[in-house]
Amino acid sequence: MPQTSSAQPGTGPKPAVRADHPGVTELFALLAYGEVAAFYRLTEEARMAPNLAGRISMASMAAAEMRHYELLRDALAERNVDVVPAMTKYASALENYHRLTTPSTWLEALVKTYIGDALAADFYLEIADVLPEEAAGVVRSVLSETGHSQFVVAEVRAAVTASDRQRHRLALWSRRLLGEAITQAQYVMADHDELVDLVISSGDGLLQMSEFFDRLQRTHASRMQELGLA
Amino acid sequence: MPQTSSAQPGTGPKPAVRADHPGVTELFALLAYGEVAAFYRLTEEARMAPNLAGRISMASMAAAEMRHYELLRDALAERNVDVVPAMTKYASALENYHRLTTPSTWLEALVKTYIGDALAADFYLEIADVLPEEAAGVVRSVLSETGHSQFVVAEVRAAVTASDRQRHRLALWSRRLLGEAITQAQYVMADHDELVDLVISSGDGLLQMSEFFDRLQRTHASRMQELGLA
Repeated sequence: MPQTSSAQPGTGPKPAVRADHPGVTELFALLAYGEVAAFYRLTEEARMAPNLAGRISMASMAAAEMRHYELLRDALAERNVDVVPAMTKYASALENYHRLTTPSTWLEALVKTYIGDALAADFYLEIADVLPEEAAGVVRSVLSETGHSQFVVAEVRAAVTASDRQRHRLALWSRRLLGEAITQAQYVMADHDELVDLVISSGDGLLQMSEFFDRLQRTHASRMQELGLA
Repeated sequence: MPQTSSAQPGTGPKPAVRADHPGVTELFALLAYGEVAAFYRLTEEARMAPNLAGRISMASMAAAEMRHYELLRDALAERNVDVVPAMTKYASALENYHRLTTPSTWLEALVKTYIGDALAADFYLEIADVLPEEAAGVVRSVLSETGHSQFVVAEVRAAVTASDRQRHRLALWSRRLLGEAITQAQYVMADHDELVDLVISSGDGLLQMSEFFDRLQRTHASRMQELGLA
């Protein structure tokens, strides 16, 4: 998973929210649905893999999502929250994102995996900054570097180096992924005040919401460069 | 995963085959393809799950298969064998097994998961007895108890207790799974002398081949009892 930089220069350490902030439970539930949805999408998109090695790489990434899901399920259980009912309310936003970004080629599937993982990591790590230490640890380990997506970088770079047409096409695709992700993130925020409150706590107030989305766009641009799409 | 008893009363410890027995590499390659095939079958069969909890249970089991695959890949790498080309020769037997046993209901999918895992465990643990210690350790950890399939027992028992028709139907299904598994195992053996040699080494000679399959049938019968199908 690519590097993310959520710390802002000149800003001191921010105060953590209370451990029982209801947004923490909601964040875990949202992440949990995200992991299961990603698992099933990866396995479905793996059908486009040109060979067994590609299918295996997708399966390994999918398996990592389930390990993360299990961490979140356990963290919710410690808060006396049953994961399945808690996560269900996030189903529509996440399923909509995946439905609106169904890849039509193997390269699109690879780019989606990479960009999608990275965007999710940015989003959650921004929030992790203000979580109580234990909750921040859960989020960070769920989003920890798995190294799986390095095979994506190699394959995409090779394809776009060989073809300008592919580069333009995948650059557009990558922008569409960002747009849909931000749209769905905004829907989720609009429906869940507890999450908005967490994001606001991570900065200096409401103004931070637009800066938050600006930062997502900037880190997205650096990912496009890594993939050779900039 | 259910208990297996491969030790025979009255037989002392059997001599291990040499660590570089070519059958060991073949066994790992066969297991590796089996794990990846099981991963994709479980995720496909999960579509029949009546709810999110069922889909999650299937996804967790599938993720466990990939962890096992990774162990085998690493064990093959230590033997300087590249997993993907090595496993490909076992594709047809394993894909045929899955194609010929495609479940048509969620309960059939659950029974297949349980019986299939258990049969695979019997088969491989029989062989593990004669493997050099390190190789036996790989096989045993790949087939180690995951606890995931306990949800299968509860759900199947509840269904067959409530309906005699379901019990008869699933009992037939379970026998079909055994039959197809044995057929495909025999095809694999017929094509791979190195594996036959491993199985023969696990007993007192060629006579053991039919006893080997007899034992598979006996342990299968105990599984049917666990599921309430006997």
